[in-house]
Amino acid sequence: MVLEMIRLDSTSQVPLYRQLSSNIAELIGRGGIRAGERLPATRELAGLLGLNRTTISAAYALLEEQGLIHGHVGRGSFVASRPCFSGEQSNSEPGVDWDAILPRPDLHASNSAYPIEISFSSSRPPRDAFPLASFRRLAREVIDGPQAADILQLGSPHGYGPLRRYLYEEAKAAGTAGPDDDLIITNGCQQAWDLLARILASAGTPVVLEDPIYHGLWQVFARAGAEVIPAPVTGRGVDTGVLEQLFRRHRPRLAVLTPSFQNPTGATLPLDQRHRVIDLARQYNVVLLESDIYSELRYRETALPRLKQLDTSGRVVLLGSYSKVAFPGLRVGWVIAPRPLVAHLAALKQMSDLHSDHLSQAVLLRFAESGELRRHIERTRHAGSQRLDAVLRACREHLPTGARFSRPVGGMSLWVELPAPLRSAELLTRVQAQGVDFLPGSYFSAERSHPRGLRLSFGGLLPEQIERGVRIIGEVAKRELETSAANAAQEPVTALV
Amino acid sequence: MVLEMIRLDSTSQVPLYRQLSSNIAELIGRGGIRAGERLPATRELAGLLGLNRTTISAAYALLEEQGLIHGHVGRGSFVASRPCFSGEQSNSEPGVDWDAILPRPDLHASNSAYPIEISFSSSRPPRDAFPLASFRRLAREVIDGPQAADILQLGSPHGYGPLRRYLYEEAKAAGTAGPDDDLIITNGCQQAWDLLARILASAGTPVVLEDPIYHGLWQVFARAGAEVIPAPVTGRGVDTGVLEQLFRRHRPRLAVLTPSFQNPTGATLPLDQRHRVIDLARQYNVVLLESDIYSELRYRETALPRLKQLDTSGRVVLLGSYSKVAFPGLRVGWVIAPRPLVAHLAALKQMSDLHSDHLSQAVLLRFAESGELRRHIERTRHAGSQRLDAVLRACREHLPTGARFSRPVGGMSLWVELPAPLRSAELLTRVQAQGVDFLPGSYFSAERSHPRGLRLSFGGLLPEQIERGVRIIGEVAKRELETSAANAAQEPVTALV
Repeated sequence: MVLEMIRLDSTSQVPLYRQLSSNIAELIGRGGIRAGERLPATRELAGLLGLNRTTISAAYALLEEQGLIHGHVGRGSFVASRPCFSGEQSNSEPGVDWDAILPRPDLHASNSAYPIEISFSSSRPPRDAFPLASFRRLAREVIDGPQAADILQLGSPHGYGPLRRYLYEEAKAAGTAGPDDDLIITNGCQQAWDLLARILASAGTPVVLEDPIYHGLWQVFARAGAEVIPAPVTGRGVDTGVLEQLFRRHRPRLAVLTPSFQNPTGATLPLDQRHRVIDLARQYNVVLLESDIYSELRYRETALPRLKQLDTSGRVVLLGSYSKVAFPGLRVGWVIAPRPLVAHLAALKQMSDLHSDHLSQAVLLRFAESGELRRHIERTRHAGSQRLDAVLRACREHLPTGARFSRPVGGMSLWVELPAPLRSAELLTRVQAQGVDFLPGSYFSAERSHPRGLRLSFGGLLPEQIERGVRIIGEVAKRELETSAANAAQEPVTALV
Repeated sequence: MVLEMIRLDSTSQVPLYRQLSSNIAELIGRGGIRAGERLPATRELAGLLGLNRTTISAAYALLEEQGLIHGHVGRGSFVASRPCFSGEQSNSEPGVDWDAILPRPDLHASNSAYPIEISFSSSRPPRDAFPLASFRRLAREVIDGPQAADILQLGSPHGYGPLRRYLYEEAKAAGTAGPDDDLIITNGCQQAWDLLARILASAGTPVVLEDPIYHGLWQVFARAGAEVIPAPVTGRGVDTGVLEQLFRRHRPRLAVLTPSFQNPTGATLPLDQRHRVIDLARQYNVVLLESDIYSELRYRETALPRLKQLDTSGRVVLLGSYSKVAFPGLRVGWVIAPRPLVAHLAALKQMSDLHSDHLSQAVLLRFAESGELRRHIERTRHAGSQRLDAVLRACREHLPTGARFSRPVGGMSLWVELPAPLRSAELLTRVQAQGVDFLPGSYFSAERSHPRGLRLSFGGLLPEQIERGVRIIGEVAKRELETSAANAAQEPVTALV
């Protein structure tokens, strides 16, 4: 094996074992290692590359999963026969060169080579908190009910009629749907973003996104070819001073904002700043896409009106979802927007997947109508409040001096900025070795790479797990700081020239 | 109202009432009719335009639904106040000019102004045939089962693990998944087309599509910006002679084929032609996307191997779905393809909607595992066979001399070519007035407009409905032929110059 060709970057956010497996896969692809050839033993390669043996094992396991190598107990790992779809195979059957056809994959991944006990990386509700008994009871009602045959039949791209009407009436009562608005149901709000980006953000369209931002949101606009204009998010939401400059300079068509409990910062935009955003959008004729998926999860202070409620000019598009407040495995979200836009969304939705799954829509409707959703949200708020207390307390107690962190009043995430010279991606691999996981700042980049930022999603963890997890992160960070201070002291001073 | 500005095209496939409503909407938009202005009474406008009064009523109903006009019983219809999202409104609040932002909508629609009693227009299973009792029993098992909490939690973009494994094992056993293949679950096969087109058919990519073709399939490739190369479908499937010419001339990257019971023609590609397609694809290095959603619905003759089973070079991507054989309201389809392509599909699927709904996946898995799906397919085949007999008999008996129609041996659709000078779009409006509906040929255009073609989807109708529906179509067609023959006899002969 041509070891010199292996290039690993310890500052990358891609874990080392994944970098290694990509390197080996590339070598196999280029013929640098041939079919049937034996790979070095894990211990041997670990020594040669100066890596932990676990990293090598994890890389080999991934390659085996991909079918590129075969492990034989007691004999080692061998490169598999060239897969038949690879371009330059030697057998008689000409294959397809998929590498030439397929675009480059997006390399953001956060798999750990170590078993993770406490994961701050996923912003989803805890599995134990699902109200299984009431879900079962209400789902049975739906299944046994007279509407079962309708549920099984093909439906409308706008969504399951009874749920759509229910959501629309709720929105009208709440003031989030005006007389010129319509509503469409999507597969969670991720699909709503994708549909909106495909319709509104054609190639080169200037679109303002918050920075840091949820990666899946950045992705849809980046893939649509939009010119992404990052607007920095502070502890009090998007910086409206900068927003005005960006509006003036770039004349964006769209701005995507999460005013309540933004992901990843947890920040909430204060009321006066909400009014300011609406004024700016009107002044510069910008359409606002408002993500409202977390706002029910408020643990402190009183609720603030949505941008959609403050707007009187029909320029706010509201995205809601049941995923964060109920069951993420049932994919139901929605968009409330002016009628012409909803008509376009419905046409594209029909082209994308005809319509959203009926069964879950019907079950979630029962869940909402019956009052169980409201009760579940109350319980979630109570638990969330304790989790929020725990994470804030743990951050105060365990993070090293110089670390800064946001103070959310709801939602599922909190943002930490580590003191220099710490880098969150490097910290992550060390923390993972102790069974704790988080997503590093680079994952939330709209433009800035946030090398010292990290997101702690506390929504799915128990207070004691939060306490222990943050303590481990803090301890590792403090050790790293001490080591780097010691190294810095030993380093020769660079001459100034 | 400026009647002179109304332009109607009786040869268009867009129903007259929709053309009229678009015309009026445009007039309202341009200020040709002002807010508060009264529209002519339906009887009055019908007289002025020489249209049926029902057409006018339908157009007004649509405009009212769109919020553009308001009807007041006894007083007539009035133009609504300018919607607040329209660009040039006069009140103080500056609005968004959605018309300027939004792309032009796709105008294919097949709504009828008349109540439809027998619809040949939708290719879906009949509602009465759903095995409700077993669906209820199995869905209860899923809901009450130990996996319920997993179902409610966020899942994998590849699909619900247990269903994915089940489908993969089934495909391996059937020879439709090779050792280098992987499987991903999508929201029915419509989403699979959309994902595949977004990945494989970037702007300008030459893609061969069958012609006539299912509109939703044409749409995804057209929207992706592919250069669509139409390949004519005969009664025996795609014409492989023409296919070879197209492969040689255009060097397409992809060809999309439905070898069994193609929609809309119902045609099936014979075995020797399947081998020929595989040979051609290998010779010209074309990736084949094989739609296999109908092949279980075979009513006559023996099953033929799928292209995927005949291929040994990893160039066939297979699309399957439960929608046509089970419940279309539960959106579950899948793609079997070489691993690198499935990895890309999963990445895009995650960006599009994270993953498919879990509940329906779990219920359909139980439905398949329990043997109920197999039993249901047997019953559907039995009923389908009777429907097929009925539609073939009715076509033989009732269609006018000179009409040609395909002879499917399975699936849900049959294709009719009317004799000249009949046009299916014109026939449709007359047939709709008698409560019968179908989709005209233009709806299935990949390139040719098929003005005399029409699709009869018989899968959702009872034999007696099929008989009556085709009889009505035949009678109207014969009358039209007589009228046009009489008119032709009265027309002066055009001088030859």
